[in-house]
Amino acid sequence: MSLTRRDLTRRDFGRLAAASAAFATVPRAIAQAAAPKKIRYAIIGLGRISLQHFMPGTKMSAMSEVTAFVSGHPDKAKQHAAEYNIPDSSIYTYENFDRIRDNPNVDAVYIALPNSMHAEYTIRSAQAGKHVLCEKPMATSVADSEAMIAACKKANRKLMIAYRCQLEPTTLRAREFIRNGTIGAVQAIESANGFNIGPDWRTNGKLAGGGPLMDVGIYSLNACRFMLGEEPTVIAANASTIDHDGRFNDVEENVSWTMKFPSGVLASCNTTYGANMEGYYRIHGSKGTLNVEPAFGYEGIHLTGRVRGAQGPPTVIDLLEQEKDPAQFAREADHFSGCILNNTPVGPSGEEGLRDMRHIQTIYKAAGIKF
Amino acid sequence: MSLTRRDLTRRDFGRLAAASAAFATVPRAIAQAAAPKKIRYAIIGLGRISLQHFMPGTKMSAMSEVTAFVSGHPDKAKQHAAEYNIPDSSIYTYENFDRIRDNPNVDAVYIALPNSMHAEYTIRSAQAGKHVLCEKPMATSVADSEAMIAACKKANRKLMIAYRCQLEPTTLRAREFIRNGTIGAVQAIESANGFNIGPDWRTNGKLAGGGPLMDVGIYSLNACRFMLGEEPTVIAANASTIDHDGRFNDVEENVSWTMKFPSGVLASCNTTYGANMEGYYRIHGSKGTLNVEPAFGYEGIHLTGRVRGAQGPPTVIDLLEQEKDPAQFAREADHFSGCILNNTPVGPSGEEGLRDMRHIQTIYKAAGIKF
Repeated sequence: MSLTRRDLTRRDFGRLAAASAAFATVPRAIAQAAAPKKIRYAIIGLGRISLQHFMPGTKMSAMSEVTAFVSGHPDKAKQHAAEYNIPDSSIYTYENFDRIRDNPNVDAVYIALPNSMHAEYTIRSAQAGKHVLCEKPMATSVADSEAMIAACKKANRKLMIAYRCQLEPTTLRAREFIRNGTIGAVQAIESANGFNIGPDWRTNGKLAGGGPLMDVGIYSLNACRFMLGEEPTVIAANASTIDHDGRFNDVEENVSWTMKFPSGVLASCNTTYGANMEGYYRIHGSKGTLNVEPAFGYEGIHLTGRVRGAQGPPTVIDLLEQEKDPAQFAREADHFSGCILNNTPVGPSGEEGLRDMRHIQTIYKAAGIKF
Repeated sequence: MSLTRRDLTRRDFGRLAAASAAFATVPRAIAQAAAPKKIRYAIIGLGRISLQHFMPGTKMSAMSEVTAFVSGHPDKAKQHAAEYNIPDSSIYTYENFDRIRDNPNVDAVYIALPNSMHAEYTIRSAQAGKHVLCEKPMATSVADSEAMIAACKKANRKLMIAYRCQLEPTTLRAREFIRNGTIGAVQAIESANGFNIGPDWRTNGKLAGGGPLMDVGIYSLNACRFMLGEEPTVIAANASTIDHDGRFNDVEENVSWTMKFPSGVLASCNTTYGANMEGYYRIHGSKGTLNVEPAFGYEGIHLTGRVRGAQGPPTVIDLLEQEKDPAQFAREADHFSGCILNNTPVGPSGEEGLRDMRHIQTIYKAAGIKF
């Protein structure tokens, strides 16, 4: 099935293949857990990521479908309603949103609003009895994040933060090469992610809560934590704004930070809204190096690496994810749907999102930025 | 001539070539300044970098030759004396070194000793009337570095620190792409350099003065400063030791640091003695990205990049330095020889080395390491 198709290019993969073979079935297991029933999503916020990625993703998913819209633009909602067979009665505004409680055709919501609205709509959705899949960053403060978790817990609803990379096969393969000792003891990680931003709500401090660290730097932060499976305990950071062209009146343009993990691993990261960085991370172990680049895109995640044995030339790792957008979104939707249908723990949970928010708070504080 | 041969692989280099054409003659100009006379070097310390790189480099140089040895191993000195036509009278020990003052066949010294000995032999060499080309790091303290500069100034002798990358053509081309605006306003840099160390004097704190930051991290530090042409004003850092296998009883295993420059550029760097990092730096500008990797090796420096125009696909930069080791050392020796012969300012001066030492001191302090 298309959801779990994994055409990995393997060049000179050699003896590493055996070590990771057992792991290759993990993403498939998610799909195999599918029940005939589908989880029915209300889309909250009809922006680019909803219209062009998540919603098309549900079309190729096994357990997820779109059954309602929540939008401040009735025309836009109606324009896309036919494509998803959504009746007028399942199109909500932000004013009448709470009536969604009475809609039996909605099990969950997908929240793709400006960051500052995540908390409110997560809480209102949980109170309306709906499970919540919320885009990252989960909120614009630690307190809001905690309130979101509490609200979902109180309503006995599941909360997932849309860290799609945590479900992506090549990313998981990279992590497996760390866990099974292939690259030895990890010593250091570098990562960067950023882009040259134009007019966008993400430079509005009130809506975004912060600059590139919130929006794209969070990928680097999360990748370091996810790869290592531990939390940084010492964080140092700098921030700056170089382009005084009006884009950065509210939020910073650049953040650079270094994290120390309990194991001793050091990670240094950059993020920017002033340059098109190809998002990547590079993991240096005592026996080898992994490079994931591009690391955070919607398709084409590429893992390369070199592993040095006791003798002979290094073993070369080259895994290129061949899936096309919106496959990652299909997987993301079905992961959450599967967790709801089978009542299993969510991978990238609200608590996972909260941990990032706490680290973001620490990074901003270290960089002298109020958060 | 072999010294300045520059076979750069150019693929789809397009309109960028014109912008940098004027610059392409700079390294050649150094050689053209050659006078018939050669500068005669005493090699202080017959280790790997002297025997395998610097000394062979002088054989392909235009203005440099080896005429004396200073070594604690008379047998090793004699073993190599014939190859360089060095008479017994020009082989010194560390005890009788000061007699070199009376040797009219020595104009300069090349110091490739453990770091802690750089200051003493720089000062003694200057007092003996010899110019000094000293390996990096220039010393193990800021005070020693200042004393070296003062001693050379007092003796009216030139002092150069062996930052060979500052003279390397592909490195200079990368800097030119920054200076001429090709990649727009620089926002951020990542860099790493390190290797998995075995038994080595460089893990002896007394001899080395520090760990990988002193030995290989200094490449990243210097590359960031050299590319930007400015000094970091805010530095944050972490350090750690992961492998408690006896190698790191004296010095740290890993250092990660982030620097903020007056322009607002942020740079984050990693260095390690616990993993084989392929040394690199990546420069993110508002219009494009430069990646130099490998960046610090003795040959094969490789610059790639992508520059986005107002429209159309990005322009691809791909410059691979085809020179073979020891060409970089030949250039380094001849740069210094040319400065002596023509009484021109040294590129990577003692003051340049001192600036790195001050930043290293700041990094260590920020990481909680005594220096």
